[in-house]
Amino acid sequence: MKLFTSVHDVPSIKQFVKDALALKANPYAHQDLGKNKTLGLVFMNPSLRTRLSTQKAALNLGMNVMVMNLDKEGWALETQDGVVMNGSTVEHIREAAAVMGQYCDILGLRSFPKLQNREEDYSEDFFNKFVKYCAVPVVSLESATRHPLQSFADIITIHETWNPLRVGANDKPKVVLAWAPHVKALPQAVPNSFAEWMCKAQAEGMIDFTIAQPEGYELAEDFTLGAKIEYNLEEALTGADYIYVKNWSSYKEYGKVLTYPDGWMMNNDKLKFTNDAKVMHCLPVRRDLELSSEILDGPNSLVIHEAGNRLWSAQAVLKAMLEEL
Amino acid sequence: MKLFTSVHDVPSIKQFVKDALALKANPYAHQDLGKNKTLGLVFMNPSLRTRLSTQKAALNLGMNVMVMNLDKEGWALETQDGVVMNGSTVEHIREAAAVMGQYCDILGLRSFPKLQNREEDYSEDFFNKFVKYCAVPVVSLESATRHPLQSFADIITIHETWNPLRVGANDKPKVVLAWAPHVKALPQAVPNSFAEWMCKAQAEGMIDFTIAQPEGYELAEDFTLGAKIEYNLEEALTGADYIYVKNWSSYKEYGKVLTYPDGWMMNNDKLKFTNDAKVMHCLPVRRDLELSSEILDGPNSLVIHEAGNRLWSAQAVLKAMLEEL
Amino acid sequence: MKLFTSVHDVPSIKQFVKDALALKANPYAHQDLGKNKTLGLVFMNPSLRTRLSTQKAALNLGMNVMVMNLDKEGWALETQDGVVMNGSTVEHIREAAAVMGQYCDILGLRSFPKLQNREEDYSEDFFNKFVKYCAVPVVSLESATRHPLQSFADIITIHETWNPLRVGANDKPKVVLAWAPHVKALPQAVPNSFAEWMCKAQAEGMIDFTIAQPEGYELAEDFTLGAKIEYNLEEALTGADYIYVKNWSSYKEYGKVLTYPDGWMMNNDKLKFTNDAKVMHCLPVRRDLELSSEILDGPNSLVIHEAGNRLWSAQAVLKAMLEEL
Repeated sequence: MKLFTSVHDVPSIKQFVKDALALKANPYAHQDLGKNKTLGLVFMNPSLRTRLSTQKAALNLGMNVMVMNLDKEGWALETQDGVVMNGSTVEHIREAAAVMGQYCDILGLRSFPKLQNREEDYSEDFFNKFVKYCAVPVVSLESATRHPLQSFADIITIHETWNPLRVGANDKPKVVLAWAPHVKALPQAVPNSFAEWMCKAQAEGMIDFTIAQPEGYELAEDFTLGAKIEYNLEEALTGADYIYVKNWSSYKEYGKVLTYPDGWMMNNDKLKFTNDAKVMHCLPVRRDLELSSEILDGPNSLVIHEAGNRLWSAQAVLKAMLEEL
Repeated sequence: MKLFTSVHDVPSIKQFVKDALALKANPYAHQDLGKNKTLGLVFMNPSLRTRLSTQKAALNLGMNVMVMNLDKEGWALETQDGVVMNGSTVEHIREAAAVMGQYCDILGLRSFPKLQNREEDYSEDFFNKFVKYCAVPVVSLESATRHPLQSFADIITIHETWNPLRVGANDKPKVVLAWAPHVKALPQAVPNSFAEWMCKAQAEGMIDFTIAQPEGYELAEDFTLGAKIEYNLEEALTGADYIYVKNWSSYKEYGKVLTYPDGWMMNNDKLKFTNDAKVMHCLPVRRDLELSSEILDGPNSLVIHEAGNRLWSAQAVLKAMLEEL
Repeated sequence: MKLFTSVHDVPSIKQFVKDALALKANPYAHQDLGKNKTLGLVFMNPSLRTRLSTQKAALNLGMNVMVMNLDKEGWALETQDGVVMNGSTVEHIREAAAVMGQYCDILGLRSFPKLQNREEDYSEDFFNKFVKYCAVPVVSLESATRHPLQSFADIITIHETWNPLRVGANDKPKVVLAWAPHVKALPQAVPNSFAEWMCKAQAEGMIDFTIAQPEGYELAEDFTLGAKIEYNLEEALTGADYIYVKNWSSYKEYGKVLTYPDGWMMNNDKLKFTNDAKVMHCLPVRRDLELSSEILDGPNSLVIHEAGNRLWSAQAVLKAMLEEL
């Protein structure tokens, strides 16, 4: 693997999930693979889970890790070509990325959208230029439009916890991505990416996938092709085995927080419609705004387990990259 | 050892000091113990000595280390339960701590008091919740009310430098904790912790312990039980073998800098009352405000030696935790 | 090697370049040398290339690395002696440096000039005090007046790319340091250091060295002794094999950005005067202000190759220090 920015970089989800669970069973079996290899983690935005899990994954594989918090360094990068750099940007991404590629065998990059200009964010201009100029394999640690290490951990978690022998079980797990309220305008990266992975998992026969959101919160079609779309949360939840709760800002009225009807916070009342569904969230979660404390502290929550699986999704990706270095 | 937050987690100071000095004599003898074990260091407040010494201690034991400066990341944690999280806190400590516990075998946490509300600070609510929710062993890197790695290094330093054969030596070293001036309101964590360790060391027959401070600067009794309390600095210093200089804000008028009589800065004039006492300070020290330059640059100062021992106190604690993982 | 702050710490440039290129050919051959040795990297100012390349160099040698971003920590250090520390500085450099020396076998320090007071900056007071009080070997990661790891990488790059068999080649490469415009007042550290290394390389018979700058931008003579000084850029460039482009603020009118004639930005038009010269820059570079994009993106640019060699200059220095620990 030379690049990991979306589900399109993964030939088979089923096989990749198997690889990750084999690593979970035997985390330190491949330490020779990473010997004298260096992972550089470049953050243009803050990170807790992604940073720690990816760092630990690399250490498990015997790699060295160097972290650069460019957001904290005031190291403003220029991305436009042909600009006379007499302003506030101190270095062009052409040089900055190329230089980091000189010292690292694999680079990870986190770069959030600005949520100002949809075309700019969805072009993934910054991310793509970084990939182009650094000249080494790149792992997305969340880009403007996707968070594939998170989505991979999500499908690992579903696969791992699904019990087909449960009384009254569906043939395949019914997975619902359910929009939830928030106070801030959040990117669509996590739901885009989750949808994209679930649509492919559905195509591979692993799950059934539904997205529920209020009017105006539809995601871009590129990411949701094949998903069942619902505007009525109760109908969407009926018979669900997994609910993936997440807020996002509007794609149509780009980056806006639109008004929405009451009743989109996930709580135990809504669980009644489900098949005793497990509840997931990528974290950080706003308690009692997106998701009720009673769920988060109860037996249906998978959120910590899911965060733990971030380690194995990162380790599977890094292992696949190391094997082709 | 599953938890290291105070002297109460230590069965015998004497034995623990011996363990630390054995590590100092042979720092790399236990590198297999830490193989594939990860220490996460979580800072809610800045750190220089604690961070470097604990990181080095872990490396000596063969561990990996991941550092999170949450104070720099603007990652404000919610600690109250039942709050609708529609404000400035981005994640609840229940999730944040649990997630960090997923990626680390041992966690270290630094969390200062706010010095606004004594009950809140002395409840150690933040620290205790972190311990509860992270579900892995925790080392205090200084909490609202204690700094046990510092105090452990202090008793190591006293034990290591005490010469009972010196002409005119006391049976046991006389140790004096002496309040000193400062321009800022500082926590009581270091003096609380030092007093607690010295009272236990006194109970184990290792030292005699006296605390000297101006009126109004008395520490909480829980920490000082068994200590001799003095308000006259010269009387306290008479016959002292070790002076531990430190400023703290008032516990009674909580967090306040009260007026105090002249003469509490430690200098060579005051050393005359002592038994040629060695002078200690946890650092950072305000020169010529808390402690005179003539002492710091002279033969009686132990402050750099003492800071060096931070490494061995951390290594002894981590070793004891690794042995029970 | 106990100290690396300038070319004066290097007995023979020729030999040191050979050592570095041997490491480049065989990066992991000396991993036992760094086992259980710790490098502390202390940054008073931001760093990208220096931090990553030095960290990677240490890892290649089997060392552990601990990074301290003191500029980000608000850890303001006092450097003056005899000051009552009742102001904003929280720790004296005497203690801070000594403590870091307790936990590290080798320290690296970056400390920029303030560009306010020439005498103060050129005394290297901060750097020298750090060296004095930390009591372990110190590598300069750029000081007020020099950037020797950069200059060492520069001469490695020239040596490595010079082809004496090229038709029409000079006996030795003609190297020109060429001032270029910028919007900010930059230190003289990089050009000082480059000049100092090139003058010594010239004395060792490796190159011919010329400096070109507008009136008022002359560097301090200590650094340029032996160099040919030109005020006419075209004349300086005539027959050049290497051009080292760099902005600096005035030394004479200290720290000032003076007016200068048009035509000092390096571009393809100016390359015509040269012997198809290779173009170098320490980076970060302001595109189309210091150096044209056409050069940076064309075949004459060595800037990324040169940045890559930062790794081997750092590794050669650390290896020389480890050998004498």
